Amino acid sequence: MEKRFNEKKRIDRALQILKKEKVEALLINDLTDIRYLSGFSGDEASALIAPEALFLLVDSRFTAQAKLESHFFQTLKISKRIEDTITLINRLKIKKAGFDPHTISYADFRQFEKGLTKTALVSVEEGLRLLRVRKEKEEVKTIRQAITISTRGFQKMKEKIKVGLTEKELANIYESEVKKAGADKLAFDTIVASGARSALPHGVASEKKIGARELIMIDFGIYCQGYCSDETCTVVTGTPTAKQKEIFSIVKNAHDRAIEKIKPGISSQEIDKAARSYIAKKGFEKYFAHGTGHGVGLCVHEEPRISSLKKQILEEGMVFTVEPGIYLPQWGGVRIEDMVVVTKSGCEVLTLVPKQLEIIN
Amino acid sequence: MEKRFNEKKRIDRALQILKKEKVEALLINDLTDIRYLSGFSGDEASALIAPEALFLLVDSRFTAQAKLESHFFQTLKISKRIEDTITLINRLKIKKAGFDPHTISYADFRQFEKGLTKTALVSVEEGLRLLRVRKEKEEVKTIRQAITISTRGFQKMKEKIKVGLTEKELANIYESEVKKAGADKLAFDTIVASGARSALPHGVASEKKIGARELIMIDFGIYCQGYCSDETCTVVTGTPTAKQKEIFSIVKNAHDRAIEKIKPGISSQEIDKAARSYIAKKGFEKYFAHGTGHGVGLCVHEEPRISSLKKQILEEGMVFTVEPGIYLPQWGGVRIEDMVVVTKSGCEVLTLVPKQLEIIN
Repeated sequence: MEKRFNEKKRIDRALQILKKEKVEALLINDLTDIRYLSGFSGDEASALIAPEALFLLVDSRFTAQAKLESHFFQTLKISKRIEDTITLINRLKIKKAGFDPHTISYADFRQFEKGLTKTALVSVEEGLRLLRVRKEKEEVKTIRQAITISTRGFQKMKEKIKVGLTEKELANIYESEVKKAGADKLAFDTIVASGARSALPHGVASEKKIGARELIMIDFGIYCQGYCSDETCTVVTGTPTAKQKEIFSIVKNAHDRAIEKIKPGISSQEIDKAARSYIAKKGFEKYFAHGTGHGVGLCVHEEPRISSLKKQILEEGMVFTVEPGIYLPQWGGVRIEDMVVVTKSGCEVLTLVPKQLEIIN
Repeated sequence: MEKRFNEKKRIDRALQILKKEKVEALLINDLTDIRYLSGFSGDEASALIAPEALFLLVDSRFTAQAKLESHFFQTLKISKRIEDTITLINRLKIKKAGFDPHTISYADFRQFEKGLTKTALVSVEEGLRLLRVRKEKEEVKTIRQAITISTRGFQKMKEKIKVGLTEKELANIYESEVKKAGADKLAFDTIVASGARSALPHGVASEKKIGARELIMIDFGIYCQGYCSDETCTVVTGTPTAKQKEIFSIVKNAHDRAIEKIKPGISSQEIDKAARSYIAKKGFEKYFAHGTGHGVGLCVHEEPRISSLKKQILEEGMVFTVEPGIYLPQWGGVRIEDMVVVTKSGCEVLTLVPKQLEIIN
């Protein structure tokens, strides 16, 4: 992988968490966190972060790659990940180690707990979960690249939409075009949900054929240099009905209201409320049953969560989606999704496709 | 999704586990287990299995899909997965519930534990992990379909291998061909590792160009109807050197010896040993640092594990890979991987590509 991120500052932030939580080391089990901190992009590893030393523990399949990719970590060749990590922690005589309880299985936790008889394992919840939440300039740049590639694939696919093609055929066009344009891979199974299927918020492309005067909800995204894009456009085949226009316009207004609210210092719940209360006022609240958005970065779903469930204060550099939707069973649905980055005084929409109800003839 | 599996028998097997472990219910958190037992293929759910009732708990994004896909489960519409599952378990007055500690995060476990003040949570380790290990006839048939599609993609790619193309270009040809042939998606990032890169057991296709007289290790697989294929071929561009031929032949012999051993009643460790001891005899043991194989089914890596670490007695219907390899740093590597199904008296190789050192000119 091309080297474009400087992990030094990220490690410093991890060390601040360690200090704040009063632990002697951080045990990192999540591969995305490991990649973020070390640069290592392989499939199995543990990392240990202490003020004196940084360790990346990988087996022989990954030692060459780990040395190549990670500049600030010492690569240790191990054979059994958990057992050998325990041995290292014991050898370093660490009395208190922090870990993220969300990224370790209960079985693995139990194994660590059993082996670490002289170390207290401390749940460092918020700190580690928010480690990646504010994006650096280089990260936003990479996300923009992902979006540019994805947009090209969407445009090419859109040109080919016609009645009679299957949803899967359309999804395959998107995929082959983004590949040509330089995507590493899809960020998730492309959703192409047409007609009544558009009432399924997660209607992955099926063998259903596109019909006339149908809404098609298309949710698409890719990976580029490790970072994701995520966007949803809803189009219609032929002149839209009055109801199709009405639902689209409600979702679009809800989307715009949420975006207008975004700025540093405001709570994620207020963003959610801006979209949700508008949809409620129009009488469709029960048909908008998911959160308004989620962070996007090295993972396609990460912090912050833009929902009614949890308050999170927005900060400059956060990147997330705004994606209200209305889904009417048996009839169909509309979702409009953009990605934004929080700026000093508001936000910038990163996604490029204009969000109007596009008519495909 | 096409309906081709009868989940009734699978549920009966789960109920036997419940009986054996003396618990009143099984709490299933793993989406693959949920799919196996219920047919539901969505992205978020919990399931609860009790002799009196089967519950599938999904939020409004997935209720329509859950009702469509799952025949034997009662779909409950929930809003918060863990909280609402706790409420259900409390309402049913279950005193003892079994769960798989490998498929739940420590944070989620803690949340269940806190909410379930009148229920003992019992780790049901082996039972649930081995639920899917013996494949039914219909499953083997589906796996064969996946392999057939994957083989076609590999053959098409192979015809186009030439010096100067990048590894990524080759991987893209495979992907586009399997898509055309009916694959749902790749089972994993295709590995195309050429020249010195073939010494990386997990060398995902890069921008490196294929050179002359290089080994190319190609590890490829797809999903079809939910089931995976997984296979590795190593080819050479031009006349192989004596050393390339020697390493290939050692790996091929190790592979054949492992396959000859496979039959019901034998331990997975003996299969691993058959391959490993041959490679050791030839002096390359330290360059074969991974296990000999792994189960393949709804997941590309599942039980049984064919390694030296854990003894597992083979049974008829198990499907797994046999994939020894030798990786010489800076020089290159060879891996040969087939999928097999254990039969009454031995095994059948499911993969279709003959495993000789193919010369690409």
